[in-house]
Amino acid sequence: MPRKVITGFSNPTVKFVRSLREKKHRREARRFLVEGLRLLTDAREGGRLPEMLLMAQGRDEHPLLAELERAVEAAGGEVIELPVDLLAKVTGKDNPQAVAGVFAEWDTRLARIDRKAAPIWLVAQAMRDPGNLGTMLRTADAVGAGGLILLDDCVDPFSVEAVRASMGGIFTVALAQARWAEFEAWLRQGADGAGGQLVAASLREAQPYRGAPYAAPCFVMVGNESQGLPEAYEMACDLRVTMPMKGRADSLNAAVAAAVLAYEVLAAVER
Amino acid sequence: MPRKVITGFSNPTVKFVRSLREKKHRREARRFLVEGLRLLTDAREGGRLPEMLLMAQGRDEHPLLAELERAVEAAGGEVIELPVDLLAKVTGKDNPQAVAGVFAEWDTRLARIDRKAAPIWLVAQAMRDPGNLGTMLRTADAVGAGGLILLDDCVDPFSVEAVRASMGGIFTVALAQARWAEFEAWLRQGADGAGGQLVAASLREAQPYRGAPYAAPCFVMVGNESQGLPEAYEMACDLRVTMPMKGRADSLNAAVAAAVLAYEVLAAVER
Repeated sequence: MPRKVITGFSNPTVKFVRSLREKKHRREARRFLVEGLRLLTDAREGGRLPEMLLMAQGRDEHPLLAELERAVEAAGGEVIELPVDLLAKVTGKDNPQAVAGVFAEWDTRLARIDRKAAPIWLVAQAMRDPGNLGTMLRTADAVGAGGLILLDDCVDPFSVEAVRASMGGIFTVALAQARWAEFEAWLRQGADGAGGQLVAASLREAQPYRGAPYAAPCFVMVGNESQGLPEAYEMACDLRVTMPMKGRADSLNAAVAAAVLAYEVLAAVER
Repeated sequence: MPRKVITGFSNPTVKFVRSLREKKHRREARRFLVEGLRLLTDAREGGRLPEMLLMAQGRDEHPLLAELERAVEAAGGEVIELPVDLLAKVTGKDNPQAVAGVFAEWDTRLARIDRKAAPIWLVAQAMRDPGNLGTMLRTADAVGAGGLILLDDCVDPFSVEAVRASMGGIFTVALAQARWAEFEAWLRQGADGAGGQLVAASLREAQPYRGAPYAAPCFVMVGNESQGLPEAYEMACDLRVTMPMKGRADSLNAAVAAAVLAYEVLAAVER
């Protein structure tokens, strides 16, 4: 198939892709931008293909890139070539990767989650930092979690920063977004009759996190970076656990706390 | 003592403080900027006072701020009042905290580290992300580590981003900077006759991280975000451990890996 070649900065496609750096435009278009062959390959292997593949002219050939190109074309997607400096303007980076892709966002309703698919799930409430959110997706992949459930007003999981920090996790684990009330109802009265154990790191009436009675499916929940979890959310947990705090600080970074706890849960549910 | 009041943007003090947002100027001045009463209080309680305290006019009174002000004046430091919009320009934030301070950097030579002072030390090699570096300082505080040792070319630990992410850890744990060769020599042939166990998360000939024979003082080392540790550094370790990787990813975020490992070491050395 002959490829479309774009050379001008004022091209509507260039303007469109460039606009996806802003949340407002991502929301309108329900599309997001992913940079780099590594992430695009993770996506393909996770069953997601870009609707539009942007490749720099003069790039080095790579078998994975050729494979990606064929897959996008076979799926009816668009493959576009453009000068490297134009790609840099689109992605907003001085040293752009040789390839980028535009993906359609997918359905992130809680109803899509099959809680029995994995022994661990991560839950983040009102998370504000895209790096933390992406790191939680990366950790979810590593601990074999089913995915990440975002509660209340979290930062956009499809932002360039979150996608980058996820190191492909955005494509390899499930993602859901819900308000607390909806999540609580789903957890407690799942249509499938299944429940789940909700666990939070907490200072309130908590037991030591090591050796606590974790049970699958275990939902590991952390709260907002500044505020922590609302007290009502903690009180709704089946288990509140505490990690040693030996110094002056009274909390860990949210993504760090989730990971330390998730690895402890993993050891327990694997036993 | 009558306070100095600054009202103009072209004031040399304003220009100087503002310049500390850039690494080049921090290096020249060997000074860095800290924002917010919380961090400044952590500093004071950790035995560090700012040379210069900047307070917004019309701020809310706070007993901790009054205490800080007295301490700075008693130590011969400078206390400056300025309009809130000018403080915003100095710190580069739209919503500045009501107070900021300029600190002199301190001696971060390895020789200052007393390895016997704590059972755990964190070590980061060629770390590039200020958020990760700050998070490691925060984790070091939480696990009761003696501090963080930075190897080779790391991002500046005195940057605003690193200091903020440390949540006070920059003031409460020790910080050292060294090249690998110097660190290895210090670790193996300490003038005090003491050694230490060097541990890395690794995929090379590694044993499971849970239940590995950790021994104090244990130095938990993680590598650069993209490259990981150089092979030679891993091979120089006393112990190489591996964490389960259940998904597609082959590594964790560096600050996350350090924390998961450090909490495991803490449980072992406390036993």
